[in-house]
Amino acid sequence: MSRPNLALIGATGAVGTVMRDIVSTREDIWGEIRLVASPRSAGKVLSVRGEDVVVQALAPEVFDGIDIAIFDVPDEVSAVWVPIAAERGAIAIDKSGTFRMEPDVPLVVPEVNPLDARNRPRNIISTPNCTTLSMMAAMGALHTEYVLKELVVASYQAVSGAGVAGSARLYDEVEALAGDRSIGQAAGDVRNVLADKLPGESPFPAPIAFNVVPWAGSYKDGGWASEELKLRNESRKILGIPDLKVSATCVRVPVITTHSLAVHARFEREITVDDAHRVLSAAPTVVLMDDPAKGVFPTPLDVVGNDPTYVGRIRQAIDFPNTLDLFVCGDNLRKGAALNAAEIAELVASEL
Amino acid sequence: MSRPNLALIGATGAVGTVMRDIVSTREDIWGEIRLVASPRSAGKVLSVRGEDVVVQALAPEVFDGIDIAIFDVPDEVSAVWVPIAAERGAIAIDKSGTFRMEPDVPLVVPEVNPLDARNRPRNIISTPNCTTLSMMAAMGALHTEYVLKELVVASYQAVSGAGVAGSARLYDEVEALAGDRSIGQAAGDVRNVLADKLPGESPFPAPIAFNVVPWAGSYKDGGWASEELKLRNESRKILGIPDLKVSATCVRVPVITTHSLAVHARFEREITVDDAHRVLSAAPTVVLMDDPAKGVFPTPLDVVGNDPTYVGRIRQAIDFPNTLDLFVCGDNLRKGAALNAAEIAELVASEL
Repeated sequence: MSRPNLALIGATGAVGTVMRDIVSTREDIWGEIRLVASPRSAGKVLSVRGEDVVVQALAPEVFDGIDIAIFDVPDEVSAVWVPIAAERGAIAIDKSGTFRMEPDVPLVVPEVNPLDARNRPRNIISTPNCTTLSMMAAMGALHTEYVLKELVVASYQAVSGAGVAGSARLYDEVEALAGDRSIGQAAGDVRNVLADKLPGESPFPAPIAFNVVPWAGSYKDGGWASEELKLRNESRKILGIPDLKVSATCVRVPVITTHSLAVHARFEREITVDDAHRVLSAAPTVVLMDDPAKGVFPTPLDVVGNDPTYVGRIRQAIDFPNTLDLFVCGDNLRKGAALNAAEIAELVASEL
Repeated sequence: MSRPNLALIGATGAVGTVMRDIVSTREDIWGEIRLVASPRSAGKVLSVRGEDVVVQALAPEVFDGIDIAIFDVPDEVSAVWVPIAAERGAIAIDKSGTFRMEPDVPLVVPEVNPLDARNRPRNIISTPNCTTLSMMAAMGALHTEYVLKELVVASYQAVSGAGVAGSARLYDEVEALAGDRSIGQAAGDVRNVLADKLPGESPFPAPIAFNVVPWAGSYKDGGWASEELKLRNESRKILGIPDLKVSATCVRVPVITTHSLAVHARFEREITVDDAHRVLSAAPTVVLMDDPAKGVFPTPLDVVGNDPTYVGRIRQAIDFPNTLDLFVCGDNLRKGAALNAAEIAELVASEL
């Protein structure tokens, strides 16, 4: 067929900005690239593939002639507009949580479960939560050979996971607090300074500069944060392990971009650190950074802006059989969001 | 007996400063309080109990007439001087890692294993690593009733765990980076700014502002960081569970003071969130902050400067029997260091 036409819905947000960069720098397989956003952003001129494009307001007609539409919009917007795009003939690739766990919507990480993308009876493909995605390429590669049974995960999640407002809030707080070398040493002192200097609402339920906040997402039964349950349920679906045991604690940290995860992973088969090194070195979208005696391990600031999943600190758990402890970093705006959606779009486009 | 005399060895460091504050504000049971430090700090005048005290240089004679000596000095200094203090008749309470795992040296958390303090054939009592201590009061209370079997822990460790230089480094980095709203979005950009503005050595192996660093301590076989092995070995000894299964990943975060831990804990007996609430509410040195639907959970900035261990985010693990996931915060300079040593000193003094 001729070059497929692509629509980016939510082109002006944090992920949308990275998405425009990604489709501008990867191999250009697209015909038209249409930029779509809320009416408030319509009319803006944004650059994609070096060309100025006028942003269109979300409306049914924007999907006319579109082959693939990538949605990065809030759940409730996806709930309404993804089916409209699909009915109008576009394959909808949705970044929201709305459809991910629907049995007739595939949840796809192209290097892990590419074939799932072909079974899309509703013309909808979901892309996972950014925290799940941060570890999926690595855990998928290990699972293929060693069969994953259990995951215990603690996250170190970047503020840009909460969008442009999340990054702005951390920069704001740092500027409000920098220079005061008594700060952070007495309970409540930072809250008092911020209440005074930054009276507006924060996207976070506690100060995020000089702090960590053990909460991400919305409240769910049993005291769970929605992000913790997503990590469990989405990992099971992507890896195709319905009985995978997962416990996660999600914590926001004062990092702008790149999620990190401390992962304790038990496998069915015996696995050593050398085995993991061999598998992960061979995985095309994983970079192994694991020589701690020489100070080599991934940190968010060393990998942000890059596409792969970075893995280090791989250790054989001393007291748990067939179990590794490891540390993973992935750019939550790239592989964690825009890149995975772009890769799904390319995968689907190659089969059109 | 008359009021016992106390010596504080390492009185000028980060922990020493908190220690002077603690002995000045808790019930005053002491005769003389002698302040001791390296020769370079000798002669300084520091306040304790509202009185000016001249710091003495570490020498065998400083232990003359001392009943209890609390050491907060590097491992190699403890190795030499703790036995000297003990030989001279002082009960040495040592914060270093040197003696903790010696079979004839008790490792004590007063609310968990106070009786162990009585068996001190070498006149030495060790106090645990600050990361281990951050969770011990809570885990000890739960273990008493439900019998702990496994711990999977990820830490969020404050920079003051690396001493005064650690806190100074984070303040320095924040000041060097504040105001630049492009920072933290491209790999290596922060390293470049810091290399230019802060050419000196950092106590951390990577930038710590706007970052997390998955390393704490020195390199050990199998890729482990010493702090991760301490958490395992010390937890086993304090709780008296030689076969406790433990895996830990230790990560430094840009927080000044207060360590946090995400803990996945399996027990022998069935345990619910309500059970844990009941036990932890009754534990005198634990504060329960667990109502996430109302935004109630502990964060470092909300608890720093306080003595208790704060626990929140308690959840019943969905896929693991008899298992809870929870989040713990404890001030690493207080309970994590100075306070626990002071409590051991008070415990021992009460039995002199």
